[in-house]
Amino acid sequence: MNTDKIALIGLGYVGLPLAVEFGKTIETIGFDINEDRIQELKKGVDNTLEVDSDELKQASKLSYTSSMEDIRDCNIYIVTVPTPIDEHKRPDLTPLVKSSETVGKLLNDGDVVIYESTVYPGATEEVCVPILEAESGLAYLNEKSADKNQSGFYLGYSPERINPGDKEHRVTTIKKVTSGSTPEIADRVDALYQTIITAGTYKASSIRVAEAAKVIENTQRDVNIALINELALIFNKLDIDTEEVLKAAGTKWNFLPFRPGLVGGHCIGVDPYYLTHKAIEVGYHPEMILAGRRLNDSMGAYVADQVTKLMTKSRIHVVDANVLILGLTFKENCPDLRNTRVIDLIEELQGFNCNVDVYDPWVDKDEAQHEYGITPVGELTEGKYSAIIIAVAHDEFREIGVKQLRKLGQENHILYDIKYLLSADEVDGRL
Amino acid sequence: MNTDKIALIGLGYVGLPLAVEFGKTIETIGFDINEDRIQELKKGVDNTLEVDSDELKQASKLSYTSSMEDIRDCNIYIVTVPTPIDEHKRPDLTPLVKSSETVGKLLNDGDVVIYESTVYPGATEEVCVPILEAESGLAYLNEKSADKNQSGFYLGYSPERINPGDKEHRVTTIKKVTSGSTPEIADRVDALYQTIITAGTYKASSIRVAEAAKVIENTQRDVNIALINELALIFNKLDIDTEEVLKAAGTKWNFLPFRPGLVGGHCIGVDPYYLTHKAIEVGYHPEMILAGRRLNDSMGAYVADQVTKLMTKSRIHVVDANVLILGLTFKENCPDLRNTRVIDLIEELQGFNCNVDVYDPWVDKDEAQHEYGITPVGELTEGKYSAIIIAVAHDEFREIGVKQLRKLGQENHILYDIKYLLSADEVDGRL
Repeated sequence: MNTDKIALIGLGYVGLPLAVEFGKTIETIGFDINEDRIQELKKGVDNTLEVDSDELKQASKLSYTSSMEDIRDCNIYIVTVPTPIDEHKRPDLTPLVKSSETVGKLLNDGDVVIYESTVYPGATEEVCVPILEAESGLAYLNEKSADKNQSGFYLGYSPERINPGDKEHRVTTIKKVTSGSTPEIADRVDALYQTIITAGTYKASSIRVAEAAKVIENTQRDVNIALINELALIFNKLDIDTEEVLKAAGTKWNFLPFRPGLVGGHCIGVDPYYLTHKAIEVGYHPEMILAGRRLNDSMGAYVADQVTKLMTKSRIHVVDANVLILGLTFKENCPDLRNTRVIDLIEELQGFNCNVDVYDPWVDKDEAQHEYGITPVGELTEGKYSAIIIAVAHDEFREIGVKQLRKLGQENHILYDIKYLLSADEVDGRL
Repeated sequence: MNTDKIALIGLGYVGLPLAVEFGKTIETIGFDINEDRIQELKKGVDNTLEVDSDELKQASKLSYTSSMEDIRDCNIYIVTVPTPIDEHKRPDLTPLVKSSETVGKLLNDGDVVIYESTVYPGATEEVCVPILEAESGLAYLNEKSADKNQSGFYLGYSPERINPGDKEHRVTTIKKVTSGSTPEIADRVDALYQTIITAGTYKASSIRVAEAAKVIENTQRDVNIALINELALIFNKLDIDTEEVLKAAGTKWNFLPFRPGLVGGHCIGVDPYYLTHKAIEVGYHPEMILAGRRLNDSMGAYVADQVTKLMTKSRIHVVDANVLILGLTFKENCPDLRNTRVIDLIEELQGFNCNVDVYDPWVDKDEAQHEYGITPVGELTEGKYSAIIIAVAHDEFREIGVKQLRKLGQENHILYDIKYLLSADEVDGRL
C-alpha cells in the first residue's frame, strides 16, 4: 500500500484530472487559492468540463482545500500552476514563485516537490529551488549533493500533456515524461505516475531534459501552424485556395495535416516564448521560433484586413458596420478562453469602427466580461450583419449551416471562414 | 487496349522508374540528352540504383533514345527534367525551357504534354506553355479556350514524389497527384497514371493547385528540420543533449520525429526556393521558409566550428590537421550526390587549413570529382586523423563501429557525429 500523502497545488485544467486519478488510490489533497473553485469542486462540479461528476465521486481519497495548513503533513507536493506570459510576451513566473513560497513553508526532511508546469530548460532548478531552500531552510538534494545522508528535499519534474477538450487523449492515456533530482527519486517519481498512467511513463535522463522536451512539443506545433499560415498568405496573393492545396499535398504519406488559423490557448501560443527567453539569455536569437510567433500573432489582424477588403469590394461601408464573430474560445468544442486570439480580430475590427457582436454558446459570459471586457450576445439576430466571420469551429456552427448563417446577414454581406467549416464555394473568403 | 504512345523526357531518378512502369503495358520511349545514360540503360544497367536489371527487362515495351526524331510520333510527352537552383539560389528553369523547346517542335494536334518537375505555382502555364505554343505553332487548349473544336495541345501536371533510395515508397506505391488543362484532359491524365500507380491517384482541381501542393511538401520538411536544427543550436549552448530531448518529446503521440542535420539533395533544400521566388514576385517576403533555408544552409559551417572548437579544447592544432569525413552523399545508403551539403563542411574545414579526406563507399569517384572536385579516399588509414566526422548515416559506418572508427584517429582526436549513428557517450560531440 502506498503510504504517500499527496498535495496537488493548483486545481485547473491540469491539476484536477491528476488529483482525481491519484485520489482514487492514494490519499490526496487538492489545494487551490481560488476559494470559488474549491467550493464548486466540493459540490461535485468541474466548470472546466474536464472531469464529470461521476469521475469526481470515484476519487474517494481526494479532498479539497484552500488552506495551507491542511496540506502541511503531505510528503509529495505536485505543483500544476499556470506559466503564462506577461504583456511583453515574457515568461510570467509569478504563480510558480508564489506556489514555491507556499510549498517551501510546508516542507519536511525527505519530502518531494514535483513540478508539472511548462518552463524553459533549467527554470525549475534555477528559479524554484532557491525559493524552496530559503522558505524551508532545507537543502536541495540532487546528484551533486556532497553528503548523501544530508537532510533536505528532493525535486521531480513531470511535464503535463493535458489537451483541453480532448476526450481521447486524457491524463491516463497520454504517455508521461518523468524525472528527478537523483536517480532514486527519478525512479520514485516514475513509479508514482505509473500507478495512474495506463499509457506508461518515460523516465528522462534529467530534469533539464524533461523541461526541454515539454517546451519543444508545443513549439513544434506553433512553428508548423505558422508555416501553414505563411502558405495561406502566399496562396491568397496567388489566388489559389489554400485548403485545395493542403488536401492535395495531404495525399503524400508524410505530409503533416496542419491547417491555418489563429493560434491561442495556454500552450502553443505561450510555451515558445519560454524557450526563446532562455535562448536569448544564452546568446542565441531564435529565427524559426520567433518568426513563427510573429506570423501566428499577426493572423487576427490579417483576417480583419481581408474581411474589410472584401466588404469594400462589395461596396459595403466598413464604418459602423455590424460584424458578427462566431466563436470566442481558443479552440473548438470547449469553453477554454485562455489566451484566445479571437480578441485580436475583435480589436482590429473595432479599430475600423465596426460594431462587433460575438456569439459563442460555449462561453461563460461573466468570464468573457471579466477576462476581456466582452459580453457575447445571447442569441443570433437575422438580417443584422454586414460581415459574418466563423472564428472557431464549434459543432454548433456547423449544425446551423450556411443557409441559416447567411440569413443573419443583410442583403449585401460577407461570409468569411477562418476554419474551413464550410466549403470554399459557400463563403466569400477564407484563410 | 491503350493506343497511346508515350515519350518520357529525362531518364533520371524520376523518369526511369516511370518509363519502366509505363513500358510494361504501353509503348513507351525513354528520351535523354545524355548519350552515356542511354547506352547504360540499353545494356540493362541503371547507375542510379533505382531500378534493377530484372525490372528493366520486364518493361518489354520500353525503348531508349537520345534522338528527337525517334519520339516524333508519340502523342503523350511526359517531362521529368530536374528543376535545380543556380548559384544565387534562384530557380534555374533551363532544363525545363530546353525540354519544352524540344517537345514543342514535336507536337501534333491533340497531343498532351505532362510535366512532373517541381516548380512554383503557375510556372508550367507561365513558362512552358508559351514555349510549346511558339515552337509548335499550336494553341494551348484549356478551360478558357474559346473554341472547343480548336486544334492545339493539352497540358497535364503530375508532380513526382520519388524518394531516392527508399525501397518501400516507390513510384507505384506512392499516391500521385494529377491535373490537366481541361476537365476531360485531367480525367485522361488521371486514368493514364492509374494504370501504373497501385496506391491510387488524387485529381487536383487545377494545375496550379497541383504545382502548389508539390512545392509545399518539401518546404514543410525543410522548415521542420530547420526548427530541429535551431533547437540543437539552443540546446548545445545550454549543454543539453538534443537527442535526449527529442527522444523524450517523441513519447507524445503527436510529436514529429525530425532530426537535426545537413539538408541537401535535389528536393528539400531546393524546392522551397521555388516557392519563395514566386512569393517575393507577388510581394510577400516569406519569413518561415527563408529562415528555414538560412538555418539549414548554415549547418555545415556550424559543425565545422563545433569540431574545431572541440579540437582546440583538446589542445589539437587545427592548421594542417588531418580530418576524415565519413559520407559525401546527401542521404544515407544511396549514391545520390545532388546538392549534398557535406560540401559546406569540407570547404569550411579547408578554410581552416585542415587536410580533409572524404570516405564514402557509395560514391562514384569520377562523379564526385566531376561535380565537386573531390576524390574520396579508397580506404581508411589507421592512426591518421585529428578529427573524424560522421556526416552520413550509411549502414557501413554503423557496421565499422566506434572501436574501429576511433582507431583511425591519432592518440588525441575528436569524434563528432552529425547523424546520431553512435550513442552520446561514444562520441566527443554531436548535433
